[in-house]
Amino acid sequence: MITDGSLVHVPIGTLRTEAGAEIPEATIAYRAWGDFHGKNLLIVEHALTGDTDARSWWDGLIGPGKALDTDTWCVLCSNVIGGCAGSTGPSSPHPKDDKPWGSRFPAISIRDQVTAEYRLLEELGVREVQAILGGSMGGARTLEWTLMYPEMVRSAAVIAVSARASAWQIGIQSAQIDAIEQDPHWHGGDYYQTDEVPAAGLGTARRIAHLTYRGEQEIDERFGVMPQPGENPLGPYRDPAQRFAVESYLDYQATKLVERFDAGSYVMLTDALNRHDIGRDRGGLNKALASITVPTMIVGVDTDILYPYHQQEHLSRNIGKLMAMAKIVSPVGHDAFLTETRQMDRILRRFLVLSCQGNPPTPPEKP
Amino acid sequence: MITDGSLVHVPIGTLRTEAGAEIPEATIAYRAWGDFHGKNLLIVEHALTGDTDARSWWDGLIGPGKALDTDTWCVLCSNVIGGCAGSTGPSSPHPKDDKPWGSRFPAISIRDQVTAEYRLLEELGVREVQAILGGSMGGARTLEWTLMYPEMVRSAAVIAVSARASAWQIGIQSAQIDAIEQDPHWHGGDYYQTDEVPAAGLGTARRIAHLTYRGEQEIDERFGVMPQPGENPLGPYRDPAQRFAVESYLDYQATKLVERFDAGSYVMLTDALNRHDIGRDRGGLNKALASITVPTMIVGVDTDILYPYHQQEHLSRNIGKLMAMAKIVSPVGHDAFLTETRQMDRILRRFLVLSCQGNPPTPPEKP
Repeated sequence: MITDGSLVHVPIGTLRTEAGAEIPEATIAYRAWGDFHGKNLLIVEHALTGDTDARSWWDGLIGPGKALDTDTWCVLCSNVIGGCAGSTGPSSPHPKDDKPWGSRFPAISIRDQVTAEYRLLEELGVREVQAILGGSMGGARTLEWTLMYPEMVRSAAVIAVSARASAWQIGIQSAQIDAIEQDPHWHGGDYYQTDEVPAAGLGTARRIAHLTYRGEQEIDERFGVMPQPGENPLGPYRDPAQRFAVESYLDYQATKLVERFDAGSYVMLTDALNRHDIGRDRGGLNKALASITVPTMIVGVDTDILYPYHQQEHLSRNIGKLMAMAKIVSPVGHDAFLTETRQMDRILRRFLVLSCQGNPPTPPEKP
Repeated sequence: MITDGSLVHVPIGTLRTEAGAEIPEATIAYRAWGDFHGKNLLIVEHALTGDTDARSWWDGLIGPGKALDTDTWCVLCSNVIGGCAGSTGPSSPHPKDDKPWGSRFPAISIRDQVTAEYRLLEELGVREVQAILGGSMGGARTLEWTLMYPEMVRSAAVIAVSARASAWQIGIQSAQIDAIEQDPHWHGGDYYQTDEVPAAGLGTARRIAHLTYRGEQEIDERFGVMPQPGENPLGPYRDPAQRFAVESYLDYQATKLVERFDAGSYVMLTDALNRHDIGRDRGGLNKALASITVPTMIVGVDTDILYPYHQQEHLSRNIGKLMAMAKIVSPVGHDAFLTETRQMDRILRRFLVLSCQGNPPTPPEKP
């Protein structure tokens, strides 16, 4: 395993999806930090538009002396199948003709994402994972890990997610998918060979999504009804170029995402979130939850409107092996697990103490 | 005043907007129920896509023996300026050329809506209003009434609204406006003379809006992750025609709105909500609130994500003349003021008792 933080691509062969399609010659990309000696692996799972560079997006939480201490632990983060940050996804070349997969890319579920990760770990010779942890879509994968490969996982931290998609989430996520699929530049998912990009659709999706990631109090404290400097949204005639400051902020978020993320991946991964349901083919939600044997910590955010806190209460009440529960208190909403570094630091340190009963694995004696 | 519940159109002359544009030969439409004898008028204010037919949308609350008892009170509901249910709006003929106003229709504020209503009451010879009441955009108008024409209004009930738009509201409302304005059938607001209608854009706007009107617990209890009967959203390839039940439900809400509502009015009224700010030109929010002298009841919904309950707490703490506060407890969210009839019945009866100290006006003796 390469643990210097560089991006590594690992072929994992043909991936057969839960719904019965195939992705031949799939690749999973990862980064890892900290020496690996068999017993000290932590898997960090990224969210929808995240990537392998966990030290960037979980700023201040991973590194020497940090909560996820790379002097003790080897921290690994892989890009999800269907993504666009190194792993095979809709924008990757199809092995048959080297043209982008596009609409040929099959639908994937959270379970398919976990299957792909398991295959990555097999390729890397990993037999044991001390802890898997992640928020949002990363939390959904973490939860599925505890059900799909419990023998491999010693503990899990499931953050800001639920046992299944809620109808509200499916509704707001489908609105985002629609915005992309209705963009004439989408070309049915095969825009890669045109010189067009569904930037407007992806931008709209991001604006909506961002408002579900951020608490209204936080956004209101920052922007209120301020106009964007130099613009007048209160003029005598409606003019889309005259914006409130919050509109400009959302436009900026949209532009940033369009620059760094593939619309095809956005659709596939959002669809995967719609399909999130740990109860499927396991006798229902609570039976599946009750069957979890991996000690699991549940973390939620008090102001999260996308995955409201009662969903984490449901998880904690019904999970077979609850290790602990923690609430992030923040005006930020869902994204608080990314932005409230001080609270996350405390939570992750406590999680790891509970995970190994205060005795982190020691490296083998050097001869 | 015609009080038989029929739709009546009243010319109110030229309306000059707050931002300085003019709407010549404006008309306001209204319906009223119950004999009017000078002292017994209740004004009911409709929400964004509401209309004059308050007895329909506030089902069970207006009529003989109901909370708003038309044996005692005359209940009047007028269509907002900019609307499409009888009053002058973007789809109305322009007096100059009889072609639809379209993009020539000026931006309107909540205050412009109230100005137009005041002019309607002038035309009808009304000098005194016992109570004004409304929810959502109707609540915004009610609040402005207490500031613009306090000498005319004896009491007010402000339901499920805030003292100004929040940045989150502006964000999610602007996303809806964008969806319409980006629809190629919008034609810059002048689609009326084409044979096209921006149905896709208006539908998208409604899907998003509906998810802000409804609590996620209520939607989840109804739909969960159920597929729409006969469709399979879990198939091996993503297919927009294979929907979850909640997607079908939102499609139905979209179709219903497209059939009954004008996209031009939707844009103008949503823009008016973005402009809602009782503090503008009044020395700020709390100074404006403190200056309110009309006894006012504030009502909120515990699960409202569009106008969260803390906004009604803010209103009640800062308003100059608080009559009472009431909380609707419901999984339904914002729309609870329309759907929780039993609770609204109790709240409105209490409001009217407080409004006239238990002594409703009696009609003049008949000779």
